[in-house]
Amino acid sequence: MQPISPATLLDALNWRYATKKFDPARKLSAETWATLEQALILSPSSFGLQPWKFLVITDPAVKARLVPISWGQTQPADCSHMLVLAVKQGLGADHVEKFLDRQVEVRGGSKEKLSGYRDMMLGSLAGAAKAGTLDAWQANQIYIALGQFMAAAAMIGVDTCPMEGIDRAKYDEVLGLDGTDFATVVACPVGYRAVDDKYATAPKVRFKAADVVEHI
Amino acid sequence: MQPISPATLLDALNWRYATKKFDPARKLSAETWATLEQALILSPSSFGLQPWKFLVITDPAVKARLVPISWGQTQPADCSHMLVLAVKQGLGADHVEKFLDRQVEVRGGSKEKLSGYRDMMLGSLAGAAKAGTLDAWQANQIYIALGQFMAAAAMIGVDTCPMEGIDRAKYDEVLGLDGTDFATVVACPVGYRAVDDKYATAPKVRFKAADVVEHI
Repeated sequence: MQPISPATLLDALNWRYATKKFDPARKLSAETWATLEQALILSPSSFGLQPWKFLVITDPAVKARLVPISWGQTQPADCSHMLVLAVKQGLGADHVEKFLDRQVEVRGGSKEKLSGYRDMMLGSLAGAAKAGTLDAWQANQIYIALGQFMAAAAMIGVDTCPMEGIDRAKYDEVLGLDGTDFATVVACPVGYRAVDDKYATAPKVRFKAADVVEHI
Repeated sequence: MQPISPATLLDALNWRYATKKFDPARKLSAETWATLEQALILSPSSFGLQPWKFLVITDPAVKARLVPISWGQTQPADCSHMLVLAVKQGLGADHVEKFLDRQVEVRGGSKEKLSGYRDMMLGSLAGAAKAGTLDAWQANQIYIALGQFMAAAAMIGVDTCPMEGIDRAKYDEVLGLDGTDFATVVACPVGYRAVDDKYATAPKVRFKAADVVEHI
């Protein structure tokens, strides 16, 4: 692995902004999207359980249907790839088994030897379910993926815009998630900024380091 | 901004893993930590409100106190920099004013012209408070920062380990957050992997793309 320079990293993170206006004529190449899809798949998650589904919408008709259920914001229609991150709700034993099966497939070994690991995960999930925090905990993992995704996109020169102000229930309906274990959490249009998006060059507003960082 | 290649990006994201064993002898240089601190500060957040505090612990005595309240995991002691991400609870008008003050400071203009923007943010925060989702919503922003941070660290060859299984109330106590608006959400030891951490070379277990990605 060849690390990049601090300057290259910070240039990209400073270049990133919540893109208000995408250039509808510019689409990501298949290779570029494939790279970002890998960045999603490689995201860290609690226990590595990957409690998610990533919906990638390029069908113009479906993208257009997302605009009115996104407070009329036009990014879902104008972007190249509309990403919607959904969480698996009620995470439980079936998912853990699927994960352990995959672990044996990738790493070899036997599932029997993973029984302590299984019990630990099931105990944590059951404890969270009992406390009423299970779905919120898993939704947090979605935001890790979103954070990694937006940083990754910026690194390769692709624009994004996190969108929380969406009608999640209607997204579920449009995207066929109704009646499944998955629920929309957050959306992220992906593409290239329009040349006339004035927000692209506005200085980033960040509190001073002394106001948000404490050294102990 | 000079984008990096897809291969460089994916090499780094594949190199990253939840580091189980840090090399206690290897510390981040001041420049490297400063870079990662900037990556935290530059994180996206809802409305850009940055509802967070980043605690960076390098004092060995404090780091050692975190081990027993982290299920005995030794990463807090062995890492170079122990990062704890805390959320500002009950986010409201005072924070919005502080943010708008900062916006005027950075971008110029007058605060009067931002009254529509202020009202929109206050309305959203009040609505969430009424629905009982305010703190959870802001905590989600912490995970965006965590996701960006871990990806950024990997890009420059620094190891991390997200830690959710910690005693948050005791962290608040040790870190002096009791009685403040801030509460511990998640921790992330930062440093360099020990050469004998066997998890470093274990193949990453990820579901197949077809199981987690849906194209529409």
